Amino acid sequence: MDTTNIRYIIFDTFGTVLDWHHSIVSHGKELNKKYSLNIDWGTLAIGWRNDGYFKATFDIAHGKREWVPADTIFTEYLEERKEKLGLQVLSETDYKQLCRIWHRLSPWPDVLEGLHRLKTKYAIGPFSNGDFNLMVDIKKAADLPWDFITTADLFQKFKPDPEVYVDEIKLLGAKPEEVVMVAAHPFDLDGAKLAGCTTIYVPRPKEYGEGTDYKEPAGKEKIDYTAEDFTALAELLNA
Amino acid sequence: MDTTNIRYIIFDTFGTVLDWHHSIVSHGKELNKKYSLNIDWGTLAIGWRNDGYFKATFDIAHGKREWVPADTIFTEYLEERKEKLGLQVLSETDYKQLCRIWHRLSPWPDVLEGLHRLKTKYAIGPFSNGDFNLMVDIKKAADLPWDFITTADLFQKFKPDPEVYVDEIKLLGAKPEEVVMVAAHPFDLDGAKLAGCTTIYVPRPKEYGEGTDYKEPAGKEKIDYTAEDFTALAELLNA
Repeated sequence: MDTTNIRYIIFDTFGTVLDWHHSIVSHGKELNKKYSLNIDWGTLAIGWRNDGYFKATFDIAHGKREWVPADTIFTEYLEERKEKLGLQVLSETDYKQLCRIWHRLSPWPDVLEGLHRLKTKYAIGPFSNGDFNLMVDIKKAADLPWDFITTADLFQKFKPDPEVYVDEIKLLGAKPEEVVMVAAHPFDLDGAKLAGCTTIYVPRPKEYGEGTDYKEPAGKEKIDYTAEDFTALAELLNA
Repeated sequence: MDTTNIRYIIFDTFGTVLDWHHSIVSHGKELNKKYSLNIDWGTLAIGWRNDGYFKATFDIAHGKREWVPADTIFTEYLEERKEKLGLQVLSETDYKQLCRIWHRLSPWPDVLEGLHRLKTKYAIGPFSNGDFNLMVDIKKAADLPWDFITTADLFQKFKPDPEVYVDEIKLLGAKPEEVVMVAAHPFDLDGAKLAGCTTIYVPRPKEYGEGTDYKEPAGKEKIDYTAEDFTALAELLNA
């Protein structure tokens, strides 16, 4: 692709950069062992993501609810289901640590190499619905080579609210054609496309766990490019 | 010092991290040569900083003027004095590049080593009145190892407006006692001190140029610590 005018590459993170499902299941299995529990962490993780995080950020993005930080959304989901999920047996420390597991998610195996290559040519950063401090924690824990961090709480709006993509480009002091957005979710690329950015889809078929038959729903707008993983992404962007 | 609770180190940048005077004078000398000019770039740089940038950000911080981005302030200063300063002879490209010289400032010689050490223990980032995209450009050009970038345009307020320090701590999701602010200007540390942060003063006696007899005015609040440079700062913070 022609990369002449491109200056910024921005990334959706949960699912695209970070393997949230595997990170939660690994942590959960440790808790199962410690407390002799039998919690199905794969199902819990998917519920937390879809019925908790996704539902709340979508409601806020579509004006059905007032804005609250992502951390509040993550905690309220568990809080409302504490007994039903069998989490009431956890110590206060373990329960609090679980609520904040989103601050310690691991990246997919191809991410670090791809980002290090992209960083040599472009300014790279997350553009996430996760909170700013959450993204700082993840960056430190996983040593992600971001040049900057941008998050929904900077604008107090959530993707896919179309306005937040415009706010993001403005904050970067960029023309839309200087910005590429990368995501594993076509609905998330729609807003970037409407705002005039180039969009690259990186499918993550294992986002909902090994062996799940998850199929990402199509977006409404046409995606510009697809890359298999972050190594292919660096290749595509001549980095 | 006791660093047990410290998580974030935030930095004033112009003067503290970046040697703006030397960067502007070096660039200006090249222009003098190219156009056979006799401009005193040391004086121009100080005027640009004090009568331009400082005056405008202070006016905005004290509610005397509506907020505008730092880039607007930098450009308007030269624009209003173009002929008086003798800059009308520059080509459009050279003039535009000069207006944006703040995007390419060099750090003081001790900065990179100090920041790399600090980064191993803390999350580090600028907290600057410069714009977000300006700080991204500087980070890329000088390879500064920031974990995050925070700037006045995130909050549409300028330091030393006391509110912006509170906004900053909130964005970091931190308790004030978890944040250390570093600056070469005591007035800038005042706001951080009032907001409950630990404050460290790093004097930069050559900020206004080699051989100038510049003395930094004292702040109103008591500074917690002083470090001679960023190596001493890393030492002080046990990094």
